[in-house]
Amino acid sequence: AAKGGPQAHPLGAHACCPHALTELSALEISAAAALIRRYAAPRPLKFNCITLREPRKDEYAAFRSRAGPRPQRRAFAVVLEKGAVAEVVVNLTRPRVEDWRVLRDVAPTLTPEDLGVVERIARADERVVEACRELGITDMSTVYFDAWSIGVDRRWGRERRLQQGLPYYRASAYDNQYAHPLDFTVVADTETEEVLAVDIRRVNGGRTPVPLAPHNYLPEFLGDQYRPQRLKPIDITQPEGVSFQVRGSEVAWAGFKMHVGFNYREGIVLSDVRVDDPYEGRERTLFNRISVVEMVVPYGNPHPPHHRKHAFDVGEFGCGLVTNSLRLGCDCKGAIHYLDAVLSTNSGQAAIVKNAVCIHEEDNGLLYKHTDFRDGKVVSARDRRLVISQIITAANYEYGFYHSFTLDGTYKLEVKLTGMLNTYCLHPAETAAPWGTEVAAGVDAHNHQHILSLRVDAEVDGRHNSVVQNDAVPSDAPVGSPENPYGNGFYCKKTPLRTAKEGAADYRHETSRTWEIINPNSLNAAAKKPVGYKIINNQCPPLLAKPGSVVHGRAGFARKSLWVVPYRDDERFPAGNYVCQSTDAAEGHEDNLTVLDWVERDEPIENTDVVCYVQFGLTHFPRTEDFPVMPAEPVSVMLRASNFFQKNPALWVPPTALGRDASSRTAFSAEGGCCADKNKYQGRL
Amino acid sequence: AAKGGPQAHPLGAHACCPHALTELSALEISAAAALIRRYAAPRPLKFNCITLREPRKDEYAAFRSRAGPRPQRRAFAVVLEKGAVAEVVVNLTRPRVEDWRVLRDVAPTLTPEDLGVVERIARADERVVEACRELGITDMSTVYFDAWSIGVDRRWGRERRLQQGLPYYRASAYDNQYAHPLDFTVVADTETEEVLAVDIRRVNGGRTPVPLAPHNYLPEFLGDQYRPQRLKPIDITQPEGVSFQVRGSEVAWAGFKMHVGFNYREGIVLSDVRVDDPYEGRERTLFNRISVVEMVVPYGNPHPPHHRKHAFDVGEFGCGLVTNSLRLGCDCKGAIHYLDAVLSTNSGQAAIVKNAVCIHEEDNGLLYKHTDFRDGKVVSARDRRLVISQIITAANYEYGFYHSFTLDGTYKLEVKLTGMLNTYCLHPAETAAPWGTEVAAGVDAHNHQHILSLRVDAEVDGRHNSVVQNDAVPSDAPVGSPENPYGNGFYCKKTPLRTAKEGAADYRHETSRTWEIINPNSLNAAAKKPVGYKIINNQCPPLLAKPGSVVHGRAGFARKSLWVVPYRDDERFPAGNYVCQSTDAAEGHEDNLTVLDWVERDEPIENTDVVCYVQFGLTHFPRTEDFPVMPAEPVSVMLRASNFFQKNPALWVPPTALGRDASSRTAFSAEGGCCADKNKYQGRL
Ligand SMILES: [Co+2]
Ligand SMILES: [Co+2]
Repeated sequence: AAKGGPQAHPLGAHACCPHALTELSALEISAAAALIRRYAAPRPLKFNCITLREPRKDEYAAFRSRAGPRPQRRAFAVVLEKGAVAEVVVNLTRPRVEDWRVLRDVAPTLTPEDLGVVERIARADERVVEACRELGITDMSTVYFDAWSIGVDRRWGRERRLQQGLPYYRASAYDNQYAHPLDFTVVADTETEEVLAVDIRRVNGGRTPVPLAPHNYLPEFLGDQYRPQRLKPIDITQPEGVSFQVRGSEVAWAGFKMHVGFNYREGIVLSDVRVDDPYEGRERTLFNRISVVEMVVPYGNPHPPHHRKHAFDVGEFGCGLVTNSLRLGCDCKGAIHYLDAVLSTNSGQAAIVKNAVCIHEEDNGLLYKHTDFRDGKVVSARDRRLVISQIITAANYEYGFYHSFTLDGTYKLEVKLTGMLNTYCLHPAETAAPWGTEVAAGVDAHNHQHILSLRVDAEVDGRHNSVVQNDAVPSDAPVGSPENPYGNGFYCKKTPLRTAKEGAADYRHETSRTWEIINPNSLNAAAKKPVGYKIINNQCPPLLAKPGSVVHGRAGFARKSLWVVPYRDDERFPAGNYVCQSTDAAEGHEDNLTVLDWVERDEPIENTDVVCYVQFGLTHFPRTEDFPVMPAEPVSVMLRASNFFQKNPALWVPPTALGRDASSRTAFSAEGGCCADKNKYQGRL
Repeated sequence: AAKGGPQAHPLGAHACCPHALTELSALEISAAAALIRRYAAPRPLKFNCITLREPRKDEYAAFRSRAGPRPQRRAFAVVLEKGAVAEVVVNLTRPRVEDWRVLRDVAPTLTPEDLGVVERIARADERVVEACRELGITDMSTVYFDAWSIGVDRRWGRERRLQQGLPYYRASAYDNQYAHPLDFTVVADTETEEVLAVDIRRVNGGRTPVPLAPHNYLPEFLGDQYRPQRLKPIDITQPEGVSFQVRGSEVAWAGFKMHVGFNYREGIVLSDVRVDDPYEGRERTLFNRISVVEMVVPYGNPHPPHHRKHAFDVGEFGCGLVTNSLRLGCDCKGAIHYLDAVLSTNSGQAAIVKNAVCIHEEDNGLLYKHTDFRDGKVVSARDRRLVISQIITAANYEYGFYHSFTLDGTYKLEVKLTGMLNTYCLHPAETAAPWGTEVAAGVDAHNHQHILSLRVDAEVDGRHNSVVQNDAVPSDAPVGSPENPYGNGFYCKKTPLRTAKEGAADYRHETSRTWEIINPNSLNAAAKKPVGYKIINNQCPPLLAKPGSVVHGRAGFARKSLWVVPYRDDERFPAGNYVCQSTDAAEGHEDNLTVLDWVERDEPIENTDVVCYVQFGLTHFPRTEDFPVMPAEPVSVMLRASNFFQKNPALWVPPTALGRDASSRTAFSAEGGCCADKNKYQGRL
């Protein structure tokens, strides 16, 4: 029922060439690979990634403001050559390799192809076969291995690209393997395709029997248990079409404009986020770039081999590489626009993920309402939400990333956690407590945390921003004093964060702490305060691994709720560019700096181009309800206008009484439609 | 397009009489008033409330389990007789007044009729006329008064029923008065209808000019500024009807069953909340009764007269009395069922609010999803939410209360705050900071908090419950020790709350603190832990008014995030039954006990019938974006199953691939429908 094609007007006419921030096309990937191969010939190469080298910020800004030329198209690649890792920059506009830099002592991302190695080689390994036979499993095609990065294994260094394999048994092809975890793990070399170790965890000298009770969740098994009549359909339609416009990867909606990028590592990247200010009659900048740049999932069972479980899903696997191809009506409901993702393979070919990014709008309930109690005069309007989303599969876990904008000017990232708990078998002599929960007989799901890092390259009403810490505190004056006679005084204590070390901040519940990204050069005329956007982040559990622990060392970024550093073109990933097999975020590894290194410089962060890293997430003590497949659990962080607009920025939204909702109905009768004042004002629209 | 009428099957056949928990009918109110009048005759009475006297818990439970007779219908009334306050119990089944108890030194709720007094008498008061004339206002019909309860005024005691009036100017009938606050306040006696005082706040001896710039938000003023074409309609329909069934005020949906009550004070009351357990094949109890039982909004400007602003919207005004009549398509979207509210007037008549409660269901995004990365085998299902909501108007403010249930067993109360900021005029010699924000020239909106109390009369799998405090903490063992070799160990530290004093708890961010209501007598067989429901409440700002302050004294309930006390039939309102003009929650007022008094008894709360009071809300530093009408700001609290079910309780929900979503479409083309496996499994349903 959608009408017409994309309405491109607010974004201008179609351009001659790709948008400067748009990911490489399939042709560009092939071209880059060919240039790199030719440059290295005759040496054989393995491509770890080929992705857009985004234009330098100044270069892009000059182009955007028509003060400079169109940036040349460049590719960035990580290549492996006999174990050596090199970063390559390719100019695609003037085709040539511009830079080839060999790095020392780093291990790049494990691609899906890399991860495919473990199951194949482990099933064929004699020690694995013997380990399974001892458990009573003789058919190796029933043993499945989830390939994970390896948090730590002191037996090998970064001269080998390591993985670990976590084995499970399946009674049939689609049986839920997480109900049947096995008691050993393997360590493998990704490049040589060797099983380096088979580590059997014996309890009191013995093996742990495989828990064999089935716990399935696929329709093949549950078909008879469904209650399809219990829930009647809900149809969400937009008979006059959607309210957003798309041109390539640019999106305009309700006064917002932005570029929606996508790369192998961060997945969705929102750039150039701007808003039409209805009061100032101009377009104002909000964020130069927003993306999820790291995530760590440390598990809390201290006993080997579980200490190795702390996946960094962005840095070690790539939120783009493991993204899902989305399905209409399943992942996305309503009137949907999809964007495809273009990724690259180990052999330098392009790989397309159809429908990788979902763009749609939703009704978002009340936008505002007020009734005059004297006469019942009432006005209300409904809110909308534009949602730009993707879903990734990180082995057992699924994460949905929902970047959203609402009509009050708010940006919110909601992450929904679902999928499967990582499980381990429980020996009859053991209890799951206190390090986990026995979610089914003999199946132990360990305590873990999910800590994500949202990178906000702020551009709040211009590039020069500062960050102020807000704490709600009682008046300093005692009760009964002339300044606080009744004791009710309280205020917002504002602490400017002046240098990067001051910008390393913790959330504080007692003062409902927020942080405000302000532009000190742009004052709100009424409030007489700098315009700002507030970071609202109260779902940010502290890292529970102790200082001195392996996780604390590796996941330095997760030690604080907020980091603020000055912008640098080459700094994006707070756990380092090369997270696999990293050891200590504070080691000052010259080819792999982390946010701890950036902060150590302690540079000024006032009235300059700043980047905020906002850590958020949750601590997950598994419940039986999370088994065999987890109900989605949401966690979110928000950026909310704070004296940024002169007034409520959504007063252009017509109240529902002037409305067009002809579809709402009473549930059990034929009454429909709205609204009292419809006839009265309809003429004006 | 809805088909058929209410499908009453899951709730059984229609009963002969009203449900024992259903609010009094209009006839019952009239009957109760007549009995009370006859009893008191010839003395004249004013009715403050006439409401259902709910059956005693044991009496109702006996009836529910068919072990006792149907409870007799009773009314509870508060009456005023020449300034004296009495509580009256009327038996409607065997018509007679059963109890008449005169109370000392209490002030009952201010009803809308009571509050209507101030504007009328203030406009006619000579001192008020003079105070306005000095500001240049001579037409008293342009001066409007918001009537508020009075937080504190030491000039009078509880022998008078006080109100304060906050005056505003309007340039025309629908002009936004909150843009034009005046600099004086009045205090009035509700019963004698006298203006007791006109308090003019002079700054440097002078008056504050009225800010006259218009700031409007009604369509009468904004008609030309709307952008009606910017947002295309979103239609939400249920062509096969809704998934919930209703019988009177009983509701069944997706395995949940409950009674939806409504009274003048609490508004919505959910009782007898039960769930069908798909694994145990039995109905299990969750909550005996859930409602919002108090709310305080303390303002943070310490200077008189602002110290008097700390409204208790439940206790002082009644969330039922000030509830809105909802409109289809405006307040509620989709397929809606409404319940009317039956309230009473000062003269003892019934007053009906049509469409006071909205019941509808919503799509709630992903319920669960998992993809096997090996073969792309994918399953996902969509979640639903049942929402039971009301919206109140508390003078300037609006609050939407959305009680919701989702398919994973979660209950969530989301409160949306909207409406108008309370404003005050700013003298040219003053600044709004630090106690407020100048939201428009000369218009000061003061800092304030909203702290609500959700009362959860728990019945988690039976009446005998305990509450355990959960703290996420690192392993006690040092890094490198045999118990914690790699330092990653962490666990959930469980502290049983044994007595009411231990049940007075604060939220703690550092440990992601939650509280679990458990049934120690009912073990989860797999987890080997008691079944439970977890209170998730991290939006619970501490009360910022200092100890010793008036607000701290009156709003004792707001001092803790959680209170747990044993159930008693007569204890429901944590700030007391009579909140108006209360002074100190800890005073032990014999006719007006508060949660502080209940806690002081320090009774055991383990394995008994417990009630939790969960405080939540937010600290609001006004922004220019909140003016002239506030975009809705949500705040919520959740109760989530915690090893209550043996497995994911939503596995009966058919995956979307088996699905029935024929309505989703791609935004810019004709592609529609789902889903890969549709044909494959359709036959099974
Ligand atoms: Co988890
Ligand atoms: Co507020």
